[in-house]
Amino acid sequence: MKSLLSALLLTVCATTGASAQQALWGGPAVVSPRLNPDRTVTFTINAPAAREVIVTGDFLPERPVQTPAGTFSAPGTATLVRNADSLWQFTTPEPLAPELYSYSFIVDGLRVNDPANVHRLRDVNTVSDIFIIPDSADLYSVHDVPHGTVAKVWYHSDTAGADRRLTVYTPAGYNDEPGRRYPVLYLLHGMGGDENAWPELGRATQILDNLIARGQAEPMIVVMPNGNIARSAAPGDGPDSLAQPSMQLPHTMDGTFEQAFPEIVRFVDTNWRTRPDKHSRAIAGLSMGGYHSLHISRQYPEMFDYIGLFSAAIFPFDGVKSEVYNDFEGKLRTQFQGNPALYWIAIGSDDFLYEPNKRFRDILDTNGWPYTYVETSGGHIWRNWRTYLSRFAPLLFHPTR
Amino acid sequence: MKSLLSALLLTVCATTGASAQQALWGGPAVVSPRLNPDRTVTFTINAPAAREVIVTGDFLPERPVQTPAGTFSAPGTATLVRNADSLWQFTTPEPLAPELYSYSFIVDGLRVNDPANVHRLRDVNTVSDIFIIPDSADLYSVHDVPHGTVAKVWYHSDTAGADRRLTVYTPAGYNDEPGRRYPVLYLLHGMGGDENAWPELGRATQILDNLIARGQAEPMIVVMPNGNIARSAAPGDGPDSLAQPSMQLPHTMDGTFEQAFPEIVRFVDTNWRTRPDKHSRAIAGLSMGGYHSLHISRQYPEMFDYIGLFSAAIFPFDGVKSEVYNDFEGKLRTQFQGNPALYWIAIGSDDFLYEPNKRFRDILDTNGWPYTYVETSGGHIWRNWRTYLSRFAPLLFHPTR
Repeated sequence: MKSLLSALLLTVCATTGASAQQALWGGPAVVSPRLNPDRTVTFTINAPAAREVIVTGDFLPERPVQTPAGTFSAPGTATLVRNADSLWQFTTPEPLAPELYSYSFIVDGLRVNDPANVHRLRDVNTVSDIFIIPDSADLYSVHDVPHGTVAKVWYHSDTAGADRRLTVYTPAGYNDEPGRRYPVLYLLHGMGGDENAWPELGRATQILDNLIARGQAEPMIVVMPNGNIARSAAPGDGPDSLAQPSMQLPHTMDGTFEQAFPEIVRFVDTNWRTRPDKHSRAIAGLSMGGYHSLHISRQYPEMFDYIGLFSAAIFPFDGVKSEVYNDFEGKLRTQFQGNPALYWIAIGSDDFLYEPNKRFRDILDTNGWPYTYVETSGGHIWRNWRTYLSRFAPLLFHPTR
Repeated sequence: MKSLLSALLLTVCATTGASAQQALWGGPAVVSPRLNPDRTVTFTINAPAAREVIVTGDFLPERPVQTPAGTFSAPGTATLVRNADSLWQFTTPEPLAPELYSYSFIVDGLRVNDPANVHRLRDVNTVSDIFIIPDSADLYSVHDVPHGTVAKVWYHSDTAGADRRLTVYTPAGYNDEPGRRYPVLYLLHGMGGDENAWPELGRATQILDNLIARGQAEPMIVVMPNGNIARSAAPGDGPDSLAQPSMQLPHTMDGTFEQAFPEIVRFVDTNWRTRPDKHSRAIAGLSMGGYHSLHISRQYPEMFDYIGLFSAAIFPFDGVKSEVYNDFEGKLRTQFQGNPALYWIAIGSDDFLYEPNKRFRDILDTNGWPYTYVETSGGHIWRNWRTYLSRFAPLLFHPTR
């Protein structure tokens, strides 16, 4: 058996490339990233011909980047050094706190993924390597708890004139209690995102599994639609085949998606055992998805009792012709007359959308419309949005309310 | 609105890296791969400091690779040249036939993914870029047809003492006909694979959607388990968190998974509307999954009426202690006395498992046990396994039989 097993291994390596060959045939077997016992992390890459190797990631102190539009902060960088085995290495000077981190290498100016790490996440058109510093209390790891189901499902949109895909999370036990009905959180992505953003970049599956298992959130269905009405599905998963992602899609913020949202709610209420009422529905979104959540909940005030705006893209929409954007304060007044159970606004102090959010809160304050406000550090980043979901989900659907 | 939209774009770029910045701020916007009207393909990479850039992919003529274990064929290579814009480029000399192709770049000896292409597939621990040359008849593209649902589901394995994940495809219309019951194909991956292999590398979802929409396959449920009983889920999706993939996992071919297989069948028959009988069950697998299919169907002769061995890893298992491997011919005899509806064997003429498969067919021939044999060109590669699934699925579950 052994020799044939070896032949199997060798053949697969011969057909899958050089990196695997090295591990078998005498080249150094690279482990990267390596989590050290003291919670520092070592990055390694085998790039013998390189003249300079840099790692850039969100575990390093941020650095300012000058652009024509102003100065922004970007993930920090560190330089790798060549060790005695001719491998390039860098170890973080300090232990890292439990968190999901992302990084990539820059080899002689070319941004590349870590060849030794298959764990990667795509954010719009950038693919980064990731790793988690876990601990027993973290919400992002897959812990040994009951797991919900994640399904990729297609619904028909009359508005788009096409079948469109969405992601549906059903909590652990859904199939075991056929008589039970569940509340639903609709969770919306940002510009350039799609129905894969929250389950992948957002760790929504793990966050919900862990919160529910700890009794910190109600068992709920989470629906993650694709907010780009001009596309049927994430790039590669729809009939536009292998189209690349884009930040600039038509009809993303012109009212079309918002107006068509009841199509999705009807589809969900028809195909899952939901509690199809306002008290059992929440809507939340990040950035563009916060903008969508604001306008959908305002347009359909009897649909959602819980609203979450995460770093919401709140800005003037003068000149955008859509019935959805009409009568901004009037529709908000109607919504707040219905006493929503929770209107939750969160943003980072460094977010470029901080001021527009402040102006929006001024409107709420002036009118005496109640909301909960959470301000964190940091900017317009996924680390904040994972945190916001982790804090928002426990507030939803309490039967004692 | 425009200026805030720009600020949104700029901020996201500042936080996601250099490649996006270039497209916005005057650097060349790279499109790669670019499918030309004559079906040639152009590859482009912006690597100003590089001294040599090579593309390697399965659309190029294969090349022999010498290894300590012998000579194997590997994907071909071509050298990119620097154009007037200082971009490295290569265009295929000939149009490409409709197919799913994979490739990567080698920049100064370092294997890297195409920074301009987010469409990538992981095969064990190697991530390759992919593209599809589509046509109206191809089975791998997402065509405008009704789509099934793909769910990631956890079941409890008493054998493993853990919850384990599997992928379940339910055909389009499953929710619309609540009284209808469906046959089930169990589809198994190879060594180093997992429950993501068939839906991703194997395009199983697209193949089934397209075959069913054309009336060429019966609507069926397809269950894609994880055949590595020592792991709960694909790397990154289980409690071993961000473990890297491995070809050498314990208990993959020692009978444990095969013996425990009825756990999975029971779980599926309990949670989906299956036709829970032999005539409505098929099992097939590639390489190690072919080995698993051979032994599971032999061990439980009343469970499956359709068996598919795709490039099956058929080899002597002397010395592996498991009841599953006992009485090889005796159990096969019992299985064939039950007249399986289809025993289907496929392999490529260049596959390193060609001879063991021939010896297995000799056993079947000697005993007069009927089977269907399909021989293709090529070796132990996903292109063949996608083809085999495309040819096997239409043969299953015909009600007229």
